[in-house]
Amino acid sequence: MVTIQEALRIIQDQKISLKSELKPLEEALGFALETETIAPFDVPEFDNSAMDGYALCGLFQEYQLVGEVAAGDSKEIELKDGEAVRIFTGAKVPEKATAVMMQEKTSVKESTLYLDEMPRVGQNIRKKGGQLTEGQTVFEKGHLLNPPSLSLMGSLGLEALEVISKPKINIITTGNELVKPGQPKTVGQIYESNSFAISGALQQFGFQYHQKTQIKDDFDATKVGIKRALESCDVLIISGGISVGDYDFVKQSLEENGVNELFYKVFQKPGKPLYFGRKENQFVFALPGNPASSLTCFYVYVLPLLHRLSGYEKNGLTTYQFPIKHPFKNTFGRPSFLKAAVIDGNVEILDGQGSSMIRSMAKGNALAFVDDGETLNDGDMVRCKLIS
Amino acid sequence: MVTIQEALRIIQDQKISLKSELKPLEEALGFALETETIAPFDVPEFDNSAMDGYALCGLFQEYQLVGEVAAGDSKEIELKDGEAVRIFTGAKVPEKATAVMMQEKTSVKESTLYLDEMPRVGQNIRKKGGQLTEGQTVFEKGHLLNPPSLSLMGSLGLEALEVISKPKINIITTGNELVKPGQPKTVGQIYESNSFAISGALQQFGFQYHQKTQIKDDFDATKVGIKRALESCDVLIISGGISVGDYDFVKQSLEENGVNELFYKVFQKPGKPLYFGRKENQFVFALPGNPASSLTCFYVYVLPLLHRLSGYEKNGLTTYQFPIKHPFKNTFGRPSFLKAAVIDGNVEILDGQGSSMIRSMAKGNALAFVDDGETLNDGDMVRCKLIS
Repeated sequence: MVTIQEALRIIQDQKISLKSELKPLEEALGFALETETIAPFDVPEFDNSAMDGYALCGLFQEYQLVGEVAAGDSKEIELKDGEAVRIFTGAKVPEKATAVMMQEKTSVKESTLYLDEMPRVGQNIRKKGGQLTEGQTVFEKGHLLNPPSLSLMGSLGLEALEVISKPKINIITTGNELVKPGQPKTVGQIYESNSFAISGALQQFGFQYHQKTQIKDDFDATKVGIKRALESCDVLIISGGISVGDYDFVKQSLEENGVNELFYKVFQKPGKPLYFGRKENQFVFALPGNPASSLTCFYVYVLPLLHRLSGYEKNGLTTYQFPIKHPFKNTFGRPSFLKAAVIDGNVEILDGQGSSMIRSMAKGNALAFVDDGETLNDGDMVRCKLIS
Repeated sequence: MVTIQEALRIIQDQKISLKSELKPLEEALGFALETETIAPFDVPEFDNSAMDGYALCGLFQEYQLVGEVAAGDSKEIELKDGEAVRIFTGAKVPEKATAVMMQEKTSVKESTLYLDEMPRVGQNIRKKGGQLTEGQTVFEKGHLLNPPSLSLMGSLGLEALEVISKPKINIITTGNELVKPGQPKTVGQIYESNSFAISGALQQFGFQYHQKTQIKDDFDATKVGIKRALESCDVLIISGGISVGDYDFVKQSLEENGVNELFYKVFQKPGKPLYFGRKENQFVFALPGNPASSLTCFYVYVLPLLHRLSGYEKNGLTTYQFPIKHPFKNTFGRPSFLKAAVIDGNVEILDGQGSSMIRSMAKGNALAFVDDGETLNDGDMVRCKLIS
């Protein structure tokens, strides 16, 4: 048995080797950059207008209008003192322009431009290199590509990016009692549901599984099932069969498949019988069979590993602190990840904390961490991971 | 010009008609339920064991072992006082069992079971209907299907769910100066990048676009481009061309295509020239062309509409409050959505707040709202939307 901190440390300390691939910009969301990105040119690449208005040469209140520059125009207009050109947002500002005046503060009579106020040097001109200069680091290696990053990469003209590949994931569910939803079942059987939570949680965080297999509680079937699954994945997630019962064959089957245990059992509630192992560059999580335990272990332990294998700088869900709404004491005898709802900035610990209770988790949006024996009074801060 | 509150209210007040479809459970993440779900049977459906151990009849410290029940077994064992059966997690508890003792607290000699401690009535038995009873409401109409919801729906045997369809979205980018990333460009031109931010943000929140078109700053092209896009979407997102310049043809083209303006211009920074309109059941957002303005308007205004059209109970990103790290005064002259980073629970307002500055947004993870003229001192709470 290890503590939560020890388990997380073991995951964090695994030496891993990353793979990379070239992704079209449009498909690169949620991937981490394989290399530092260097600006290939200044951004903006030329002085340009921040407004629709007039580019002015010298500081006056009247100008002679001598032309127009639209966005995308490549022509260069030679301005002289007292001359102005019509200009539009994003258009290249003529070399000798002193400022741009927004059109709402101007009037034009014949070819003379009158300003409502005196212009200031550099006003409404976005300077060449104002955001990035050629050769500057845009993003460090490992930067996670979010929507604004895609925009910036696009503006650098990059149509594809070298990113860290995401891990290939297989899922195995175990249990003789399990029947697929939609199929007939007999007394004593239940519908298999954990794999839907796991595949949903993978999708929620931008991952997908490669194969999903259901195996019976039988030593040979378990051993063969694990062998097959390990043939085509970087991470194997097994649900159930990892407890101490006579029908729990997962642990022994993993050993016989050459998987080395890194930890087994974590001092926590829910999710005590959690297993983590490794075979060369492949990782195996065996999650407890109870629905809430299984999903909690996914958010707390599996996700940080998937993030590491994807080259992320920050791994796992961020922990935020919010005040608790009602007093709470953790009398479960173990440090606990509790189903919770953060509503209007306050944390409510929900009813239905049992390991098999999944409805409370579905209705909440957070996992609240409360230490063994910890008492929280009204307004005390609770550590929370936001899960939906 | 409307205020932020007025703009959000107009979006919120739109009468909308929702469509529904049947989704396989595996593909239902992020969809809202079209109807209330009623439990078709009790969950659990039968009393079952929470542990690997022994099901006991009566309260003693010694029992005669008379059999075994594994998970999935449908056989019924008639227990008499003083008798016990081996039982496993999730297995059906025999009808007359009083309690289950976990195996770690037992020893067996021949066919006699000895307990280390006295059992308690009901111990380690998960009661039939403990989570849900037949006929009970599982989830209300509009419930958003998160991973634990998929698990619960699976356990009810539901292989497919009737959900609200998501809107069909088209994207138009405008601007003569725009060139696709990867293509050659001339002086005065820039790479088109907004559409990558928008499609990325759609993907981030479980949406996708149907068509993406680039049109020139030309009245006829704009009018025809908008007409074509409106032939195949519920929501049209246009980037650029909505300002006051002579080359901004979007507004007039929308009018000529029968789109009615619901608001134009919002008193905010960035994103002042934001347009929202409607034609029967179709909605149009024209976003400002500046990258940061465009994406900010997406998060603040487009997303709530997409959520509404997807039947969500809660629309848009949740606003959380965190203490500010350094004092800040909003001197921009308008209420502002600021690029910010929430780090270790504190908000940092980032450098690079210009509308064209997207790198600061890429490096941050939040939009902080600070009202016009508002002064925030060390530790004052800031309203934030978490965007990555």
